[in-house]
Amino acid sequence: MDNNIAALDSVFHALADPTRRAVVQQLARGPASVSELARPFDMALPSFLKHIGVLEASGLIGSEKSGRVRTCRLKRRRLAAAERWFEEQRALWAGRYDNLDNLLETLNGGENES
Amino acid sequence: MDNNIAALDSVFHALADPTRRAVVQQLARGPASVSELARPFDMALPSFLKHIGVLEASGLIGSEKSGRVRTCRLKRRRLAAAERWFEEQRALWAGRYDNLDNLLETLNGGENES
Repeated sequence: MDNNIAALDSVFHALADPTRRAVVQQLARGPASVSELARPFDMALPSFLKHIGVLEASGLIGSEKSGRVRTCRLKRRRLAAAERWFEEQRALWAGRYDNLDNLLETLNGGENES
Repeated sequence: MDNNIAALDSVFHALADPTRRAVVQQLARGPASVSELARPFDMALPSFLKHIGVLEASGLIGSEKSGRVRTCRLKRRRLAAAERWFEEQRALWAGRYDNLDNLLETLNGGENES
């Protein structure tokens, strides 16, 4: 459970940056090398590599080096865990309206009886 | 568009903290006063108010003061926008597998013809 909390902390922290979200979006289309990923950004490579490091630390992406090429891929499971957090909040919110519906039904029922 | 990017930055930043996520979760059940929200946390009020400030700045929650009570409520729209970002990545990912399916079908078709 504590692991999950720490994981969500680092996933949301990783996603709180437009460059890192764009990298995730690119990797959702399929694996890519670091140089392919860096191309759209007007950024020095060391700065870009810091973003890659934050994404790897969050568990959102993994990478493998083959020769001189480092290839990154998305780790869907971690992304899905973060999405589930939103689904849980939506379920609570929906439950709240179910409760209001029940209350209104009870109140209306009460009116009919009077 | 730039507004959306900045909004996602601040929403994900706001959610990268367990206290702030717990507040959102509590407010998904319905509005609550700051003192009700603070109760579960072993935290000085000024520190807690900073978390509330980050959530308000992100647009995830709003608050109103009536007399000495400040009541907070969830702003569903901003939460839903962040959830949509995950749905978009999932659609890209799904598209990728559709492409693989098409490729496999083409390859299998090729085998049958040979």
